[in-house]
Amino acid sequence: MSIDRISQIKASIKSIPDYPKPGILFRDVTSLMEDPEAYRATIALLVEKYKDQGFTKIVGTEARGFLFGAPLALELGVGFVPVRKPGKLPRETVSQSYELEYGTDVLEIHTDAIVEGDKVLMVDDLLATGGTIEATTKLIRRLGGSVAHAAFVINLPEIGGDKRLQALDLDVYSICEFEGH
Amino acid sequence: MSIDRISQIKASIKSIPDYPKPGILFRDVTSLMEDPEAYRATIALLVEKYKDQGFTKIVGTEARGFLFGAPLALELGVGFVPVRKPGKLPRETVSQSYELEYGTDVLEIHTDAIVEGDKVLMVDDLLATGGTIEATTKLIRRLGGSVAHAAFVINLPEIGGDKRLQALDLDVYSICEFEGH
Repeated sequence: MSIDRISQIKASIKSIPDYPKPGILFRDVTSLMEDPEAYRATIALLVEKYKDQGFTKIVGTEARGFLFGAPLALELGVGFVPVRKPGKLPRETVSQSYELEYGTDVLEIHTDAIVEGDKVLMVDDLLATGGTIEATTKLIRRLGGSVAHAAFVINLPEIGGDKRLQALDLDVYSICEFEGH
Repeated sequence: MSIDRISQIKASIKSIPDYPKPGILFRDVTSLMEDPEAYRATIALLVEKYKDQGFTKIVGTEARGFLFGAPLALELGVGFVPVRKPGKLPRETVSQSYELEYGTDVLEIHTDAIVEGDKVLMVDDLLATGGTIEATTKLIRRLGGSVAHAAFVINLPEIGGDKRLQALDLDVYSICEFEGH
């Protein structure tokens, strides 16, 4: 992995104070995608890390996970499977609830999108609490898929999502880390 | 354009009766993305059509527009700009309302994502009424961008969205068409 490329990717990510609420310093991947070299470097790093390992599906969570998972699936030549909020997927789905700071939310996946024997890689833009990827892991495993890897552009290690996901027997990778919440 | 490739893409799109409500035959691009050959062929067709034409930005609308617009932007080597529902973009935005069958909805774009002189291509999965792409066109033009092209995987010509967008001086392209609503 090139340090230069990682520095370029990290530098392209803008930090927005007090979004979505006071005290949060939001790490914004839309500025990364507006920078074609940084965006290409991001996908290239993921391709180098995950090629030739027998993955059969890439799963990305709505909506920013689509922006990294779908290009990776295209490069690896495997199917892309979206995990979405309730009511967005037209075929038969299975659902999994997960806890938010206040209350709960639900994610869904098409029942026929993962089959026994699939080896799945999960991709999302940012690892904070790990709640959505924990729910996604449960969905994939309920459908008989094997999932042991989760990839992120950004990790916020102070929040501890990486530890939560490692406790689910997931190998957790992120291209870059930021301090804070 | 290869007829075979277009047939392969069209065949990969499942049709779901009575979704999201009775009487609607929903055309489902998630099945296209699960088919790596069809997904790659879709992006390749868009690249062939739009390469070397001086586009400086690709704009994709939340969330399925991300799945075709972002890979196209990566292939063309230009920035990808998301248009999203309210409250999802962290930097300063401009907003545009548009009419739904019942009521209205709003789309937003980052104010700094489009600059004077940008030549923009809009990408979405499906053209029905054209309401979201009309709103997206207005957002881009309000920011000083030039936009004269909209690309879709699917067009439903009986609904007439293509006529509505052509009235905005947009060149409208779709890879395939389906009958019905």
